[in-house]
Amino acid sequence: MRALVLEKKGELSLRDIALPLDVGPDDVRIAIHTVGVCGSDVHYYTHGAIGSYVVRAPMVLGHEASGTVVEIGANVRTLKVGDRVCMEPGVPNMSSRATKLGIYNVDPDVTFWATPPVHGVLAPYAVHPAAFTYRLPDNVSFAEGAMVEPFAIGMQAAARARIVPGDVAVVVGCGPIGIMIALAALAGGCSRVFISDFSAPKLKIAAQYPGIVPVNIGEQSLVDAIRVATDGWGADIVFEASGNPKAFANLFDIVRPGGAVVLVGLPVEPVDINVPAAISKEVRIETVFRYANIFDRALQLIASGKVDLNPLITGTYAFGDSIEAFERAASARPDDVKLQILMSGEEG
Amino acid sequence: MRALVLEKKGELSLRDIALPLDVGPDDVRIAIHTVGVCGSDVHYYTHGAIGSYVVRAPMVLGHEASGTVVEIGANVRTLKVGDRVCMEPGVPNMSSRATKLGIYNVDPDVTFWATPPVHGVLAPYAVHPAAFTYRLPDNVSFAEGAMVEPFAIGMQAAARARIVPGDVAVVVGCGPIGIMIALAALAGGCSRVFISDFSAPKLKIAAQYPGIVPVNIGEQSLVDAIRVATDGWGADIVFEASGNPKAFANLFDIVRPGGAVVLVGLPVEPVDINVPAAISKEVRIETVFRYANIFDRALQLIASGKVDLNPLITGTYAFGDSIEAFERAASARPDDVKLQILMSGEEG
Amino acid sequence: MRALVLEKKGELSLRDIALPLDVGPDDVRIAIHTVGVCGSDVHYYTHGAIGSYVVRAPMVLGHEASGTVVEIGANVRTLKVGDRVCMEPGVPNMSSRATKLGIYNVDPDVTFWATPPVHGVLAPYAVHPAAFTYRLPDNVSFAEGAMVEPFAIGMQAAARARIVPGDVAVVVGCGPIGIMIALAALAGGCSRVFISDFSAPKLKIAAQYPGIVPVNIGEQSLVDAIRVATDGWGADIVFEASGNPKAFANLFDIVRPGGAVVLVGLPVEPVDINVPAAISKEVRIETVFRYANIFDRALQLIASGKVDLNPLITGTYAFGDSIEAFERAASARPDDVKLQILMSGEEG
Amino acid sequence: MRALVLEKKGELSLRDIALPLDVGPDDVRIAIHTVGVCGSDVHYYTHGAIGSYVVRAPMVLGHEASGTVVEIGANVRTLKVGDRVCMEPGVPNMSSRATKLGIYNVDPDVTFWATPPVHGVLAPYAVHPAAFTYRLPDNVSFAEGAMVEPFAIGMQAAARARIVPGDVAVVVGCGPIGIMIALAALAGGCSRVFISDFSAPKLKIAAQYPGIVPVNIGEQSLVDAIRVATDGWGADIVFEASGNPKAFANLFDIVRPGGAVVLVGLPVEPVDINVPAAISKEVRIETVFRYANIFDRALQLIASGKVDLNPLITGTYAFGDSIEAFERAASARPDDVKLQILMSGEEG
Repeated sequence: MRALVLEKKGELSLRDIALPLDVGPDDVRIAIHTVGVCGSDVHYYTHGAIGSYVVRAPMVLGHEASGTVVEIGANVRTLKVGDRVCMEPGVPNMSSRATKLGIYNVDPDVTFWATPPVHGVLAPYAVHPAAFTYRLPDNVSFAEGAMVEPFAIGMQAAARARIVPGDVAVVVGCGPIGIMIALAALAGGCSRVFISDFSAPKLKIAAQYPGIVPVNIGEQSLVDAIRVATDGWGADIVFEASGNPKAFANLFDIVRPGGAVVLVGLPVEPVDINVPAAISKEVRIETVFRYANIFDRALQLIASGKVDLNPLITGTYAFGDSIEAFERAASARPDDVKLQILMSGEEG
Repeated sequence: MRALVLEKKGELSLRDIALPLDVGPDDVRIAIHTVGVCGSDVHYYTHGAIGSYVVRAPMVLGHEASGTVVEIGANVRTLKVGDRVCMEPGVPNMSSRATKLGIYNVDPDVTFWATPPVHGVLAPYAVHPAAFTYRLPDNVSFAEGAMVEPFAIGMQAAARARIVPGDVAVVVGCGPIGIMIALAALAGGCSRVFISDFSAPKLKIAAQYPGIVPVNIGEQSLVDAIRVATDGWGADIVFEASGNPKAFANLFDIVRPGGAVVLVGLPVEPVDINVPAAISKEVRIETVFRYANIFDRALQLIASGKVDLNPLITGTYAFGDSIEAFERAASARPDDVKLQILMSGEEG
Repeated sequence: MRALVLEKKGELSLRDIALPLDVGPDDVRIAIHTVGVCGSDVHYYTHGAIGSYVVRAPMVLGHEASGTVVEIGANVRTLKVGDRVCMEPGVPNMSSRATKLGIYNVDPDVTFWATPPVHGVLAPYAVHPAAFTYRLPDNVSFAEGAMVEPFAIGMQAAARARIVPGDVAVVVGCGPIGIMIALAALAGGCSRVFISDFSAPKLKIAAQYPGIVPVNIGEQSLVDAIRVATDGWGADIVFEASGNPKAFANLFDIVRPGGAVVLVGLPVEPVDINVPAAISKEVRIETVFRYANIFDRALQLIASGKVDLNPLITGTYAFGDSIEAFERAASARPDDVKLQILMSGEEG
Repeated sequence: MRALVLEKKGELSLRDIALPLDVGPDDVRIAIHTVGVCGSDVHYYTHGAIGSYVVRAPMVLGHEASGTVVEIGANVRTLKVGDRVCMEPGVPNMSSRATKLGIYNVDPDVTFWATPPVHGVLAPYAVHPAAFTYRLPDNVSFAEGAMVEPFAIGMQAAARARIVPGDVAVVVGCGPIGIMIALAALAGGCSRVFISDFSAPKLKIAAQYPGIVPVNIGEQSLVDAIRVATDGWGADIVFEASGNPKAFANLFDIVRPGGAVVLVGLPVEPVDINVPAAISKEVRIETVFRYANIFDRALQLIASGKVDLNPLITGTYAFGDSIEAFERAASARPDDVKLQILMSGEEG
C-alpha cells in the first residue's frame, strides 16, 4: 500500500509499505477517507521524537481519521460494510486493570496510531477493533469525522472539569487544542468561555463563535479581565492549554475559591506551581490524557449542530500533496487551525 | 400597600394590606417590577392548599419577581440602590446544618414567598436578604429576571443530573417546568433533549428550540422513540416532570444501563416504582427540590444568550388586571407557558 | 467431572457431567477449593427460577468460589500456576459499550455462573478469564476467598453510596447481604451502622461487630431509633437490603435532608415509593447490581484485617455432603449466615 | 481575664487582657477547659508571622479548644448551658457566596482564632457562634474534644480524596498532620495507609495503629516500597503532608493511573511539579484548606471508637505552666505529637 511514511526526522516520502491487513474476529477494515494533520505528526517530522517516543524506524503518520467500513470480523455486530466511521486511535489491553475501570486511556499497554513504533493511517486502508470504530451520523461529513479525534481532547477536558451548568470558564492558550476545549466547554454547559493568547489571528478564529470571549494578553492582563468579568469572584474553571511554564504562574489568581484548574498542555520541563495559592482556595486540579468513552459524545454534539468544527478546517490537500500539507503545517501559520488530507478520490 | 391578596380559596382581591417593610442590616428593599404567575400560586387560588400547606389567612401571592433596589441595610456591600435585581424566594436559617452544607433548599426552616403563612410579592415593595437578591446583567430584562425562578428549577434538575457533555436526555412532560428542564439540560451540556407529552400545542412550543425533539406519546411510544434514537442503548438521563404516576412505569425502559433518572414532578400519591428494573440497570435516581446556588448560574446562561426565555412569556398584564391574569392561568390554555404581571408603570 | 447438578426444580444430584475445559489464551483453569452456598443457588433449587431466569436444563450450581490456578493461557501474565485465587462469576462482553465505560456489571451480555443456562462451579475444575480471577493475599484463606463474592455486593453498595468519612448509616434487613453491607459500610468509612430486622438471632450475629448497632423492629420503631441517634437530623445513608415492600414506606423518614438511599434488596413486585417525601429532602437514590471493579478492594480490606468474615461462616460441608448443605440452607435457620462446601481434600 | 498573650515575636506572657464577652443572639459563651498547642501557635511565637499574617499587636494564642457552655444567645436552640463542646475556630461571613455554597472555609472573609489580628482562646472564656460549636458525645473527653480541630484537617483531606472503600493510601510526612490524615484515611475507608518519613520516632508513633504501615525513607525508597506493595500498580491516593519541596518530585511515581494526589502540606516556596507525569496518569490533584462541615463527622468517628486520638496526646500542662508547654513545643521533640493545656481546675 502507498502511504505517507516518516523515514526519519525531517524526511517524508509517499511510497509503498507493507501494513498488516488481517481482520481479526473483533476487527473491521476501513477504507480511509480523510486524515487530519496533528501537531504531534508534525513534531515527529520536525524533531523525530516526542519525549521518550523516538522514531527509530520508518513509520506511517496520521491518527485523525474517517473512512468507510469495507470488511468486518466474525464477531462484529455493531458495524456493517458500508458504514461511514471515524476511529479512536488508541487501543488498550482489553483485559487490563485500567480498562476494566473504564479509564483505558491510562492503560500502560495502550498502542496509539503514529506513535513509535506503531504505524498511523495515512494509507488507503486500516484495520481496527470495532469497539474503537464509531459510526458517523448521516449529517456528519467525513471531514467532520476526521475532526472528532482532536475535538475529543477538548471533550475529555470538559468532562474531567465536571462543569456545572452556567459555569464561567477560561482557556489559557488559543492553539487548536485550546479552541477545541473552548468549544467543548461551551457545548458542555459553560455560559461563557474566555480564551487568552498573544496571537490576534488565533483569537480572531476563536472569537467567531458566540460565547467565546477573546483576551489578548499582549494588550491586557488576564487576571484583571477575569476579575472584572466575574465581579472579583474568579472563573469556575480554568483550562491550561498552552503548555507554557509562564502560564502556570497565575492560574490560581484566575480561578474562584473552590474552583477547578484543568491541565491539558504539556510543558516541556517541570514547572513551578504556587501550591499555597492553590491550597488557600482549595482548588481541584484535574489532568487530561487523551480521552476515553468520548468519541460517541463528541459525535452527538456535532450531529446535533451544537458544535460546528467546519470553520476550523483551514486547508484540504489530496493524498498526493500530503508532504506539501505537512510543510505548511510545519510553518505554523497563525491563521491555520487544521489541515486535512483526502485519501479517497484520485488517490483512493 | 396595595397587593394581590388571596383572601381564601377561590377569592382574590386587589387591596391594601400591611406588609413589614423594615430593612434589617443584611436586607434590601426592592420596588417590584415584574411578577410571574406560577402554577403553585394558581393552585392556592383554586384549591386553597398544596399538600400540608393550607391557606388559613389572607395571603399575598407571587414569588417569581424582579425589581429595583431602593434601600439597602447597613451591612450590605454586594448591592446598591438602583440595581436591577431578581430574588430567590426561599430564605433558610443561615446557621442551620443544611445551610452550612450548602443545601439550604432542604433546610427544614426555610420560609418561602407565597407559601402559607408567608406573604408573596405581588405588591409594590418587598424586603429581602441581600444574599438572596441577584443583580441582573445589563442585557437581561425585568421580564427575563422574573423568569429566573422557574428556570432555576430546570437548572437545579440539570445540575443534579450531573450531565456529561454530549449526554442524550429525555424530559417526560411538556408543561412549563418540563420546558425549563429541557432548556437547562440543553444549555447545560446535553446534545439533544427529547420531550414527551400528549399535548401537541405544548410540544410545538418546546420544539421551536433547536435541539429539543418533541415526542407526542398520543401518537408513538416513547420507549420505541428512544430505542431508535439511541440504537437500543437508552438515554443517559431521564427527567420526570409530569408528576403523573403512569409516567413512572417506563422510566427504566428509557434510560441506559448506568444512567440517571431525575425526579422533579410531584405525584399526588405514592407511585409504583419497578425497583428490580432500576436495579438491573444500576440506575442512579436523583430528586429535585427547588434550587440552591442556582440563580447566578441561571443569569449567566440568560445573559450569554445560550438560553432565551422570552418566547415562553405568553401574556403580560398590568397589576390592575392581575385577577384576570390569574383567571386565564387557571383556565390552563395549552399554548400558555408563562403569564406575567407588571407592577410598575401605571400601577407602580 | 463430578459436579453438583440441579436437574430441575427440587432435584439435586452429585454426578458426572461434561463441562468445557478448554483454556483460551486469556483464560486460566482453576482447581476449585471452596464454594459458598448462595441464596440464589437455593432459590433455583427450591423454585426453579429467579424472575425471567428459568432452569430449563440440568445446571451445575455454585458461584462463590476460591481455588488454585492449575493452567494458564498463552497471554496470561497476571497469574501463574499455583496461585491461590477467587473468581468474579460474571463475565461481560469485553468490547461492549458498558464494559468500556467500566460498568461491565450492567453489560446486557454478561454471563454469570449458575444463572441459566450457564453452569456454576460446584465441580473440581473451572475455566475462567484471568481478568476476573484474583490472587488471594497470603493471609487470606480459601474460606475467606469464597466469601469475597457475597461481600463484594456489600462493597458495591458502599461504593455506590459515596460514603463521606464519619457518615452514619442504616441497613434495613439483617440477612447475609444486609450484614455484608453493614461490614462494608463500616470498613468503608461510616462511623456507625444501624441494622434493623425482626429476627433477634440475625441481629445478634451482626451485633458482634463493634460499630454495628442492632435495632429490633419488633420491639422499637426504626424511625424513632434513628431520630434519637441523630438528634432528629436523620442518617446520612440508608441501605435497603430486605427487598420487603413494606420496608420502603419509611426510608425517607430515616434519611437526612440531602442524604442517600441505596437500594440493594429485590422486591418481588413493584413497590410504592413516596416520591414527594424523597423530593422534599432532595434524596439521592442509588441502586446496586452485583459489582464491578470490587474484588480487589474487597480482598484488600480482608487482608488488612479491617473486615473479618470468618464469624459468618456457620457451617462447612464436604463436597460429598453438598446436597445436605443445600437442604440446610433451604431450611433457612435464623442463625445461619453462610454455608460452604469443600471441594478439595477427601473429595478433591 | 488572664490569658496567654503573644506580646510579640519570641515573647509570651500570662496576663490580664480585655476580651469581648458580649453574647450575641446566635452566640454561646464557653468556659474553656482544654486547649491544644498547634504548630501555627508555636510558629507565631518563634517567627512572629505565617506568610502574610504578621503579629503586629499582642494576641492571645490557641485555637484547638474544648469547654463547657455557660451562656447562650436568644436564638440558640441547638445548645444549652452545661453542654460539653468543642469549637471550630474559623467563622465566615454567613451571607457570602462561598458560605452559601457550603465551602465556608474558603470564604475570603473568614476570621480565625489566633490568626492576626484575631485573638485565640488560651483564656478562661470565649464567645462563639453556636453554629460552629459542637456538643461532645458523652464518651468523648475534653482532651479528645480539643483534638478535634487538628483531626479535622485530616478528615477534610480524607473527604476531599473521595476514598472508595478499600483504597490503598500513602501519606508523605509523619508529623502531627500526617498522622491525623493517616487515621482519617484509615477510618474513612482505606484498607492500608503507608506513611513515610525520615524520623524513626515519628514513624513509631504512627505504626502503633493497625493498618498504618511506616516507611523510613532514610532506609528504603518510597517508590520501591509502594511498587512492591501494589504489584506495580501504585497507590489509589497519595497525601502530601510534609510541605517539603523535594517530596513533590515523586508523588506521581507513587500514585496509580487515574489515582488522586491530595496536597495538604504548605511548602514555603513554589515547587517544581512534573506536569507531564501527572497528565500521563491523568491524576486528580486535590488541595485542602482547613475544613468545612467536618467537626460533626470527626466527633462521630471518635465517639464510635473507630479513631483513638489519646495516644497522640504526649503531654498535658496546667494553664499556669503554659509558657513551659510552648517552649517544649518549640523544641520539637520527635516523639511529641500534641501538647495540651488545661484551663480549668487549679487554674480555672
